[in-house]
Amino acid sequence: MTTADLVQQIKQKKSMLCVGLDVDLEKIPQHLFTCDDPIFEFNKAIIDATADFAVAYKPNLAFYEAHGAKGWSSLEKTISFLNTNYPKIYSIADAKRGDIGNTSRMYAKAFFEDLGFDSVTIAPYMGKDSVEPFLYFPDKHAIMLCLTSNAGAEDFQLSKTNADNFFFEKVMEQSKTWKNSERLMYVVGATKPAYFKMIRKHLPEAFLLVPGVGAQGGNLDEVCQNGMSSNYGLLINSSRGIIYKSSEKDFAEKAREEAERLQKVMSTYIK
Amino acid sequence: MTTADLVQQIKQKKSMLCVGLDVDLEKIPQHLFTCDDPIFEFNKAIIDATADFAVAYKPNLAFYEAHGAKGWSSLEKTISFLNTNYPKIYSIADAKRGDIGNTSRMYAKAFFEDLGFDSVTIAPYMGKDSVEPFLYFPDKHAIMLCLTSNAGAEDFQLSKTNADNFFFEKVMEQSKTWKNSERLMYVVGATKPAYFKMIRKHLPEAFLLVPGVGAQGGNLDEVCQNGMSSNYGLLINSSRGIIYKSSEKDFAEKAREEAERLQKVMSTYIK
Repeated sequence: MTTADLVQQIKQKKSMLCVGLDVDLEKIPQHLFTCDDPIFEFNKAIIDATADFAVAYKPNLAFYEAHGAKGWSSLEKTISFLNTNYPKIYSIADAKRGDIGNTSRMYAKAFFEDLGFDSVTIAPYMGKDSVEPFLYFPDKHAIMLCLTSNAGAEDFQLSKTNADNFFFEKVMEQSKTWKNSERLMYVVGATKPAYFKMIRKHLPEAFLLVPGVGAQGGNLDEVCQNGMSSNYGLLINSSRGIIYKSSEKDFAEKAREEAERLQKVMSTYIK
Repeated sequence: MTTADLVQQIKQKKSMLCVGLDVDLEKIPQHLFTCDDPIFEFNKAIIDATADFAVAYKPNLAFYEAHGAKGWSSLEKTISFLNTNYPKIYSIADAKRGDIGNTSRMYAKAFFEDLGFDSVTIAPYMGKDSVEPFLYFPDKHAIMLCLTSNAGAEDFQLSKTNADNFFFEKVMEQSKTWKNSERLMYVVGATKPAYFKMIRKHLPEAFLLVPGVGAQGGNLDEVCQNGMSSNYGLLINSSRGIIYKSSEKDFAEKAREEAERLQKVMSTYIK
């Protein structure tokens, strides 16, 4: 999917909502365990219930790998269901991958070509040749960790460089020099609203994937007020806050209500 | 496996060799394609042929994920075969994972408890709470990216901090303050021998996983001369240089010869 297609979708739905499909078997409704593949059934119900209000879905790979080959099969069925039934909705494999060039190529091929995701999250530590293989595919994006929502962001991302910048600023600046860098998006945690204006100085137009609204405590209004660009420029993710709103038979209905509530807030910022 | 068990194994075999199981279907012998699971058959043959000379095996996850659920099944069979038949040999899931705390916990559980690996490689960018869940397991290790073998190491790892240190030095120093940091090992590329002495100042005793000998051009003697600690302290990986020594029916035999050649060099450094 091109960036223009994504922008069009945001405009049409008046939403920047991404729903995180972090499916934990200890948290999903009991009645799903009579199904052959409870994870897939859960995802299908959540997607059908929230698709009116969401422009993107983001399964976090850890929750699928935790179940081995069966978990991968649930992931394959989920992305295939999404691409078949909602081809205009954007998809993110939240994998935080990154390796030497020939290995990153394998990952990129797996997520983009075999599974059919529109984007994959990546880690910057190994630098240019670990990222560029993910930028090789037209109409696909790599979403690089920049300033994350967790406490550990202090350790390295918010450390200072010899030019007295934050390290995450160096990550942004350096990444702009890489080939096909227009296919990069960046992860910026909703728990760090004070930094959004600084980030927009470095990246006036790039899309930011913003996790941390909801369970992690990020404020949706602050994110919209400080983070938007001229073409919206935000994908705001909520996972636990939406998908575990209820653990009863009404889980999908409650997820829809919460997705609609978030979309209503976002819609006030979308002209 | 404890560090002491690993040290014992190195002493006994006079080897610090780790064999990388980066199985690429385009490179393995044609005759294996008559098997139901060519990747597993290849790994089994390589492990049986090289186990006399290797103290560790390291599948890189990208090469398995590239084949979806079937690839994961090959990985599961491989680690199970290794743990059953060679319980004293060390295993590394080369996954380069790292995520917010509750997600890192899922990854740690998957690799350590479900699959049964002794260690997993991790990326430092998200800091303390993204790494500590991997350090929670007694007798398991997390192997953190420090100074990698690829060209992109220049971008961030070799950038300078405001204290005029290299960024990878900060990563080492910071990580030593984390809970259970004695369960950390570090990835240091064989292509960066000039930095080994500096690294040993920060980490006199920690084990270093050293990729890049062979196909990537690292020099084995230089690594041994500059990288060893009082308890050996090195796991030196070769992947392509061993497993693709031949693409004919004699692939396992040729892999054994190359593993023995490397072990012979290493043995001269092991008292």
